[in-house]
Amino acid sequence: MRLAVDVMGGDHGPEELLQGVKVGLAADAALTKVFVVGPEAELRPLLERIQLTDPRVEIRHASEVLTMHDDPGIAIRRKKDSSVMRAIELVREGAADAVISSGNTGALYAGSTVRLGRLEGVKRATIACILPSKNGVWLLVDGGANPECTPEYLFQFGIMGSLYMKALLGIERPRVGVLSNGSEEGKGTDATRTTARWLKQTDLNCNGYCEGYDLFLDRIDVCVCDGFVGNIVLKSSESLGRAVRDMLHEELKTYHKPWRLLGAALAKGGLSRIRERMNPEVYGGAPLLGLNGCVIKIHGRASRTALGYAMHQARQIVNLQLSDSIVRELARWSTIPTMDAPVTTE
Amino acid sequence: MRLAVDVMGGDHGPEELLQGVKVGLAADAALTKVFVVGPEAELRPLLERIQLTDPRVEIRHASEVLTMHDDPGIAIRRKKDSSVMRAIELVREGAADAVISSGNTGALYAGSTVRLGRLEGVKRATIACILPSKNGVWLLVDGGANPECTPEYLFQFGIMGSLYMKALLGIERPRVGVLSNGSEEGKGTDATRTTARWLKQTDLNCNGYCEGYDLFLDRIDVCVCDGFVGNIVLKSSESLGRAVRDMLHEELKTYHKPWRLLGAALAKGGLSRIRERMNPEVYGGAPLLGLNGCVIKIHGRASRTALGYAMHQARQIVNLQLSDSIVRELARWSTIPTMDAPVTTE
Repeated sequence: MRLAVDVMGGDHGPEELLQGVKVGLAADAALTKVFVVGPEAELRPLLERIQLTDPRVEIRHASEVLTMHDDPGIAIRRKKDSSVMRAIELVREGAADAVISSGNTGALYAGSTVRLGRLEGVKRATIACILPSKNGVWLLVDGGANPECTPEYLFQFGIMGSLYMKALLGIERPRVGVLSNGSEEGKGTDATRTTARWLKQTDLNCNGYCEGYDLFLDRIDVCVCDGFVGNIVLKSSESLGRAVRDMLHEELKTYHKPWRLLGAALAKGGLSRIRERMNPEVYGGAPLLGLNGCVIKIHGRASRTALGYAMHQARQIVNLQLSDSIVRELARWSTIPTMDAPVTTE
Repeated sequence: MRLAVDVMGGDHGPEELLQGVKVGLAADAALTKVFVVGPEAELRPLLERIQLTDPRVEIRHASEVLTMHDDPGIAIRRKKDSSVMRAIELVREGAADAVISSGNTGALYAGSTVRLGRLEGVKRATIACILPSKNGVWLLVDGGANPECTPEYLFQFGIMGSLYMKALLGIERPRVGVLSNGSEEGKGTDATRTTARWLKQTDLNCNGYCEGYDLFLDRIDVCVCDGFVGNIVLKSSESLGRAVRDMLHEELKTYHKPWRLLGAALAKGGLSRIRERMNPEVYGGAPLLGLNGCVIKIHGRASRTALGYAMHQARQIVNLQLSDSIVRELARWSTIPTMDAPVTTE
């Protein structure tokens, strides 16, 4: 298994991500090659400094770096020698099996769509994010790649999301729901109503809508929404999770109340289990589903640990070999949107 | 201060809400009258059973009850003798200063808009929900009343939300943000871009967008969004909060690991402080801003404690006397939407 890692896009700089490559390689002997992509003159001394001498590591030079402020459409045309485009290129050439990037999501999405192309029948690729729930995990599609979606895109996200969760976790019939502001059929928008009606006509395990209340309480496996809503759900839950973690930390490490400190120490196992369960880094690697090639987005704030996990996940995701089943299942249900006109508001 | 409480809409039934009236009355001597609205033959024996004999309580008979499945538009026309409509009527007549209901949000919103009317200049009333953040609180407008919004509605929600937070919490210049999938100007939808541009032209403390990541980390005071997104943010954060609470409970009450139990006991003060801070019931009373009269929505699952809090909040909100400032500020900025055409996608 060979990976291409764009080490230039992270908020913590390339050194942190190179440390992550070190973590990932140490944890996974099945990785045979990791291309680290970025300006060679910058990366070479960093590799030496952190003593990353693993022979599986190879620098691939890229002279340019995209920032979060680059417009994706313009960036992929004008900055052709960017680290993210070079990393994608390695997958296109067949030199790498998957690419991992923590950079500009829009550019990664646009660049990989243009360079790798979509699988047959796919209208839009989607970013599929795993999130923790009380006793398990659930999938958010789209996690932010497509802010505005037609019902047909959303319909396909549901199908691809279900296939992914089935393959990844072995759930026989993942519960699929279209995220709405209530469970009743009349709720939502024209797009959500149409999507829910279409998905109910497939053999997916879909009863129509799911609600915000279902997400973290093990009531759904695949939550379908556009990338505008998906981004907001993702980031607001991340901020709430962080607020609670910070509050726990402050309340339990109150040094002038030593019994709490003792309590925290005794309860430590439980608290760290929760912290670990709710840690977004563990779930950080989100694949773009629907492309000719494996592309994994990780968080801009990804730490070395997060990249280490993501490298392992990338290998898992490549091994799922989802492409054939995505093409087959999309073709199987492709007549539903054409035979059934979208719902419009009465 | 006189309140009308629709005791028929809650998931736990009227007895729980009558218990809540008891809690609220015991805690607040400034309440001079509480009308409990619902079928008299059902309420009278319940009052006796729970020994709610406070002379400030008066039953107002309503023969019908709306359910969550009633279509709001149809319900308010056909079920004229419903508890929620009778409760609103008491405010319209001037017999009560505010109405509290835990029933069908759509019916409460539609019914109070029709019966009380909107304040001058208000395009749509909005439901304003207070939520906890790491060290404080923030306001979500709209919390679910208006699933589809024009930029003009959203613009007015920002102005009304800012006035509410200023009056309620004494924040001189509340930070107002339009919720989007990123902070850059080009992000979002046509509606969010237009709204952000308009709000920046007022003297509100608004820099344009806020993101999901800002919400629970004290980075925003007023978050403006449509009710579709607002409902999802509200319910998903509630479900995440509950998942974390349940996990804490399970991890720390692991009886075969007694040291964790001891730890939990020692850390209890800290944990309950967090539980209290994050308890949605404390923030449960959400006013409909923009109406000729004070209407407070509480959660369908509201317990007696939640209603008790909401009764106290209702009194606070009535005392803010926001109507004049809402009418004045909306008039002051009313030319912005008419002079500045909505942004359309380039």
